[in-house]
Amino acid sequence: MSYVHRIRVRYAETDAQQVAHHSAYVVWLEEARIEALRSIGRSYRSLEADGVLMPVIEVQVRYKRALRFDDHPELVTTVVPEGRTRLRFETVITNEGQACAEASVTVAVVNGDGRPIRMPEALAAAIAAG
Amino acid sequence: MSYVHRIRVRYAETDAQQVAHHSAYVVWLEEARIEALRSIGRSYRSLEADGVLMPVIEVQVRYKRALRFDDHPELVTTVVPEGRTRLRFETVITNEGQACAEASVTVAVVNGDGRPIRMPEALAAAIAAG
Amino acid sequence: MSYVHRIRVRYAETDAQQVAHHSAYVVWLEEARIEALRSIGRSYRSLEADGVLMPVIEVQVRYKRALRFDDHPELVTTVVPEGRTRLRFETVITNEGQACAEASVTVAVVNGDGRPIRMPEALAAAIAAG
Amino acid sequence: MSYVHRIRVRYAETDAQQVAHHSAYVVWLEEARIEALRSIGRSYRSLEADGVLMPVIEVQVRYKRALRFDDHPELVTTVVPEGRTRLRFETVITNEGQACAEASVTVAVVNGDGRPIRMPEALAAAIAAG
Repeated sequence: MSYVHRIRVRYAETDAQQVAHHSAYVVWLEEARIEALRSIGRSYRSLEADGVLMPVIEVQVRYKRALRFDDHPELVTTVVPEGRTRLRFETVITNEGQACAEASVTVAVVNGDGRPIRMPEALAAAIAAG
Repeated sequence: MSYVHRIRVRYAETDAQQVAHHSAYVVWLEEARIEALRSIGRSYRSLEADGVLMPVIEVQVRYKRALRFDDHPELVTTVVPEGRTRLRFETVITNEGQACAEASVTVAVVNGDGRPIRMPEALAAAIAAG
Repeated sequence: MSYVHRIRVRYAETDAQQVAHHSAYVVWLEEARIEALRSIGRSYRSLEADGVLMPVIEVQVRYKRALRFDDHPELVTTVVPEGRTRLRFETVITNEGQACAEASVTVAVVNGDGRPIRMPEALAAAIAAG
Repeated sequence: MSYVHRIRVRYAETDAQQVAHHSAYVVWLEEARIEALRSIGRSYRSLEADGVLMPVIEVQVRYKRALRFDDHPELVTTVVPEGRTRLRFETVITNEGQACAEASVTVAVVNGDGRPIRMPEALAAAIAAG
């Protein structure tokens, strides 16, 4: 599945180089993952309430073109299952048609004790169908 | 009691005006409160482990002079009990002798269910003695 | 003038008490101010491009009821001129009809050198009319 | 060269899973890079004042073991030149002897216009010597 989410660069997210700080992208990527899951019918809050947590185990971001305050970029996120206990989210960030960054975030699917679990069937099916 | 804590302005805490963003001060004030408590023998982590939480109920900051990346200001924090269920932390931030900000943060003392409780005797005594 | 803005509590904005961290509100308040200005026809980015900056000189927040991840509160912001060189933004944050926080943020209107200036006539008029 | 820097996990850096949020590591890595440069005699502030900027072009973090509020991990950072216009910072984060994360951050060396430049001879020499 693939999902398009737009964010607005906050003033607080800029830095003294007058561009969005590179750590802000990591927060946007999380927001995009959460909205991608919502779009296929599972809020991440409800997953956690059901004891299904998704801690991040790897982040990779390649920055290509700076974003500025008030920019309104698109994050296009594709969800790729890695077996039944991990998900990889591939995101491309573009602004006014120009590629700004590419990212890959891998999450583990774990229970409240942090042990790997198989993701719920319905979620796996929704990702496959999405 | 009064406690002096120094922070270093992080690049991530600056904004496009090339000064520390005003929200960063709120995070520094929390760090200063935590170090002030440590200085009188109670780590905030151990307080939470004992079921004593201190959620913030009011923050006031007056900004006087901007701070920049890599500045190394002093935060002088005075702890003032407000009855037995609240603490007020008054902080003055100075950099190279110049006043940069003044702040007042009030926390409630609550248990794990969020209900107000009397703060532990030993903590109240340490604050009075400090 | 008064403006209603909604935010979505990010996972990154929560803390170990499993509620939104008190510093996140300060960032939301800024976003609300920026959207309030946009609603009356002035983007803050265009103001800065014209040499009109609005550094924050005072923040006060009273926290009443915690917000959690994925909550979707409303921020109702009223803009009150304080003479011609300052603006005060009064914001009430509510979630599902319940008051969560009240805040007051005062900004100075300054030029690129940080000197107080009279705010542009058109902006003052738009605020008065809004 | 290699440099050891310790940080203290801030309460504001934790999230609702009661561990440090994965985006906080990116900020710590930046702090570690800045302190590594300071240790070889170049403050990053002085580099920027001299027109030498180091925007991040790639970040990769692998998370192995969660960190909690008040943890006091070590960041061991090794600086690896990539030609004369890029630096790669390899960081291992450990807490009480246990590996918590591994990261690689690549920065470009650019001038105030964002154009790649050769890094100053003295800096290259200090890194080689360090």
